[in-house]
Amino acid sequence: MTIQIIGFSGSTCTQKVFNVLEELGLSYEFIKVKYQDIKTPEYLATNHPFGKVPVLIDDGFKLYESRAIARYLINKYQGTKNSIVLIPSDVQKAALVEQFISVETSYYTGPLHKLFEQVVLSKYFEKTADPVIVKDALEEINKVLDVYEKLLEDKDYLTGEFSLADALHCPYGNYAIKNGYDDLYNNPKRPNVTRWWKNITERECWKKVASTYELF
Amino acid sequence: MTIQIIGFSGSTCTQKVFNVLEELGLSYEFIKVKYQDIKTPEYLATNHPFGKVPVLIDDGFKLYESRAIARYLINKYQGTKNSIVLIPSDVQKAALVEQFISVETSYYTGPLHKLFEQVVLSKYFEKTADPVIVKDALEEINKVLDVYEKLLEDKDYLTGEFSLADALHCPYGNYAIKNGYDDLYNNPKRPNVTRWWKNITERECWKKVASTYELF
Repeated sequence: MTIQIIGFSGSTCTQKVFNVLEELGLSYEFIKVKYQDIKTPEYLATNHPFGKVPVLIDDGFKLYESRAIARYLINKYQGTKNSIVLIPSDVQKAALVEQFISVETSYYTGPLHKLFEQVVLSKYFEKTADPVIVKDALEEINKVLDVYEKLLEDKDYLTGEFSLADALHCPYGNYAIKNGYDDLYNNPKRPNVTRWWKNITERECWKKVASTYELF
Repeated sequence: MTIQIIGFSGSTCTQKVFNVLEELGLSYEFIKVKYQDIKTPEYLATNHPFGKVPVLIDDGFKLYESRAIARYLINKYQGTKNSIVLIPSDVQKAALVEQFISVETSYYTGPLHKLFEQVVLSKYFEKTADPVIVKDALEEINKVLDVYEKLLEDKDYLTGEFSLADALHCPYGNYAIKNGYDDLYNNPKRPNVTRWWKNITERECWKKVASTYELF
């Protein structure tokens, strides 16, 4: 049975899962839903109780939440199609991947999501971006990326080696760049972030995801 | 070497890690810091780059972010001191634990943290709680717990069996209850949540953590 992913193209969380599937060399079927579909009683009862995407179906096993799906795919399939390691087996190395996944979840994604709501979702819903919220979000993102600049000193990737933690960062940054905020990631004041961003977004898998799944 | 935890008693994330250490039957040393200590340049450079607690030190290995610390402790020590299973080895069962950790992180903790800031942290910093934010937070928590009510139908725990996902829910709920919001968790309108809450908070390990580490 082919792995199925319920989601929508523009969803950052759906793109995170696609990036992991591509890195692991897995084939999959994309079941497209629309934003308005995911709040229906049927969707809530059968797919995601909080009305979100993506949802994975793998041979009858259903799972929601992108990072949980990513870990499941890695636990089950890592090493079966290629030699890419997204979570290492070494306990300390795996712990550092988890540490940086938590950094991505807790500090990075919040302000980028705020920016995303204003400059991407607002267009989709035909609303006007709030310049005060955009300014606050940008200040916060800059502070977070200044910390990343230190974390990435002498490193090509967050833990030193490419991992799931890096891969999860791509979708939100891509939206920021496509909407005029390139200097967050490509900035001579942050050479380590700039190098890291190039390393993680010039991988063939992410390039395929970014070019296949259109923006909202 | 004894496992060391840098944190402070009132921190929900520190309490999460203590709960995991207790469940796994591990002994540990608590290195207390104060709220003002964790924003110093030295703390940021050597312990947590975002100025948070807890931080684990295990035989020279340093790790931050509570959920990453929890997974590390489980990967390394689960089964060595007792037979408690917080993350099962079965790939699908482990995936469901991760799914509910993500639910806790993404939907449960946010509004409870908002309430915590108003009714707990505001006292600590001698500020006044904002009734509008409290009202919004309570509305959001009630909505989330209404979804939990469905998720917990015919189940004693989130995945069916006690796991890390359940254990991570205790600290924020405990603060809500201690500050007058008992009806969130003990409510005849939500019998499944009420049963689950009793199951997870009447465990000896959590009772020990809750009684040992005083509120702010």
